[in-house]
Amino acid sequence: MSEHPPTPHIEIDEQRIERNLARAAEYVRHHGLNLRPHAKTHKSIALAQRQLSLGSIGLTIAKVGEAEVMAGIGDDIDLLLAYPVVDPDLADRLVQLSDSAVIRVAIDSTLACDTLNAAAQRTGSHLGILVDLDIGMHRTGLPSPEAALKLAQYVDQHSKLRLDGLFCYPGQIIAPINDQGAELDTIAALLEETLELWRKAGLCVSVVSGGSTPTLYQSHLLQQLTEIRPGTYIFNDVNTAAGGYCGWDDCAAVVVCTVVSEAVQGQVVVDAGSKTLTSDRLIPPGAGHGNVQGYPLARVTELSEEHGQIDIRQCETRPVLGERVRIIPNHICPCINLQDQVWLKNSDGSLRPLIIEARGKV
Amino acid sequence: MSEHPPTPHIEIDEQRIERNLARAAEYVRHHGLNLRPHAKTHKSIALAQRQLSLGSIGLTIAKVGEAEVMAGIGDDIDLLLAYPVVDPDLADRLVQLSDSAVIRVAIDSTLACDTLNAAAQRTGSHLGILVDLDIGMHRTGLPSPEAALKLAQYVDQHSKLRLDGLFCYPGQIIAPINDQGAELDTIAALLEETLELWRKAGLCVSVVSGGSTPTLYQSHLLQQLTEIRPGTYIFNDVNTAAGGYCGWDDCAAVVVCTVVSEAVQGQVVVDAGSKTLTSDRLIPPGAGHGNVQGYPLARVTELSEEHGQIDIRQCETRPVLGERVRIIPNHICPCINLQDQVWLKNSDGSLRPLIIEARGKV
Repeated sequence: MSEHPPTPHIEIDEQRIERNLARAAEYVRHHGLNLRPHAKTHKSIALAQRQLSLGSIGLTIAKVGEAEVMAGIGDDIDLLLAYPVVDPDLADRLVQLSDSAVIRVAIDSTLACDTLNAAAQRTGSHLGILVDLDIGMHRTGLPSPEAALKLAQYVDQHSKLRLDGLFCYPGQIIAPINDQGAELDTIAALLEETLELWRKAGLCVSVVSGGSTPTLYQSHLLQQLTEIRPGTYIFNDVNTAAGGYCGWDDCAAVVVCTVVSEAVQGQVVVDAGSKTLTSDRLIPPGAGHGNVQGYPLARVTELSEEHGQIDIRQCETRPVLGERVRIIPNHICPCINLQDQVWLKNSDGSLRPLIIEARGKV
Repeated sequence: MSEHPPTPHIEIDEQRIERNLARAAEYVRHHGLNLRPHAKTHKSIALAQRQLSLGSIGLTIAKVGEAEVMAGIGDDIDLLLAYPVVDPDLADRLVQLSDSAVIRVAIDSTLACDTLNAAAQRTGSHLGILVDLDIGMHRTGLPSPEAALKLAQYVDQHSKLRLDGLFCYPGQIIAPINDQGAELDTIAALLEETLELWRKAGLCVSVVSGGSTPTLYQSHLLQQLTEIRPGTYIFNDVNTAAGGYCGWDDCAAVVVCTVVSEAVQGQVVVDAGSKTLTSDRLIPPGAGHGNVQGYPLARVTELSEEHGQIDIRQCETRPVLGERVRIIPNHICPCINLQDQVWLKNSDGSLRPLIIEARGKV
């Protein structure tokens, strides 16, 4: 069973993970940056520990449930919740982790500030706060250096909160890697203006946190950054490979599935649908639902919940009924979140299970 | 806590479920059809038992892992795996359920037939087989009445398999309900032609299994059907309501989430992203990622993994920071599959947890 798990499952190539992690670790070492990988991608304690052992200063997490799992690593692990908390119950759960972890939160409202301070008061603990500045994605984050200053000053007045610095996320940058120079310049100017306002106001800034997988290896161009938070880089996926951010050989995670039907002409059906590959799409319309390894002209055209329809009309050779095929998903993060366990493939081809401890945790 | 679970979570209105279930039960009773609800939608033993207590003859399931959970209901529960099995290990797991359940499988290949017969031989059990006929969706299923006859005859020669009948799925029918007449006529002719071939060949047909939620209340127009397999009808969602297959008041499941950011002008962000609402889309491009209850002009424009961006520029009143909002998802089935438990809301407004026993089970 351990050598031949039922399909669909996710298989992870350990050598590729090690290469991806080593490359990022070497990059940040060379440029004097701190690496704080986003654990939402792998949701695995073992993989988090591997990242930490290679020099990561802590972890980024997306929600309190993930923080509760990752705090179990102990050793005063440094966790940044890259997400506003405005719910008192969730804030209470978060501050309770302060016994075994350093907890920081990125916020963009006075409500989040008040909520977290009140929770910290109830337990007598302290929280680090980063102020979230919108640098162009327009998802969360304050809209201007002035607004960021105002919230920073507000945080600074709260006795249980420690103003640690600035937080940003360049999630809008998905263009090919060579087209990003101008946008990075704009972001750099915005960060500099914000930090200058804080300095003038006498506010201490120890952390400027940014980064993403697409921008990972350009992070040094934003000289203000002290740390970066890529997530996907450990596995990569069609989005990062097709975007030019890694090679196809750097994709470490594949969905292994079985051809279960070939009854419809020009098509095979695999047992990986949207409940395995997810419906996350690539930017170009009609780009399909993943990359079928070994069959470059096969296209995953339609997903039902448990069916993946693969158009094989252009294929010279085609997968046959009963065959196991490997598909690199468009976006690996939500795929991992659907698995209770995945399978690590060693260099000798043997497989062993890896539990995804932080799966779900809504 | 039980009255105020953390967000995001799924809340299910028990009265609406009861109404949806009663309506379908009354419809099939009136038309002399059997109802075999698809358990992939709710993945809950308690909800399956409720369907059975209202007269459903058994359950439809999508994979062996779900069958293993639902076989736990006992009482010789009648399970139809609406999915081809071509993997010997999965076939072995399936036939082992024959002790406590009646197991049937829909197949479209001789490989599936051979695989299942071999597994049944190993345990000395019997399996019922339905032959899958493609009636226009072009996903699985044999392409013609002649091909279906050929596989039926092949099945009939296998000592451990019992040919039970015909299987079809009108998944292509997603047009508004009044436009479906012509397509149903075509399907009826195809079914009739197939069954006539089987009769002439002396094959026994006890089951003709079809149906879906969109076609549920038109099932009697296909006079060949003996049973139908709707799934979504228990909850409904934006796809069924916007398609005209139910009223908005028949949507029984909502994602409850919290506004966590309002920093970006014209927008609020909720803590329900693609890891809660999924990226499943509606047919019209730009239709958004769910229906925000009480804010008819709000549009869920973008999902990240844990962020849902809601455009509020057209709203007269708008959700405020910290507010809990309720979103009907586009497609409820994969959303339920992301939850370890959901919350049932009683008529008095009280909440109690409902475990999703068959979540995942890949």
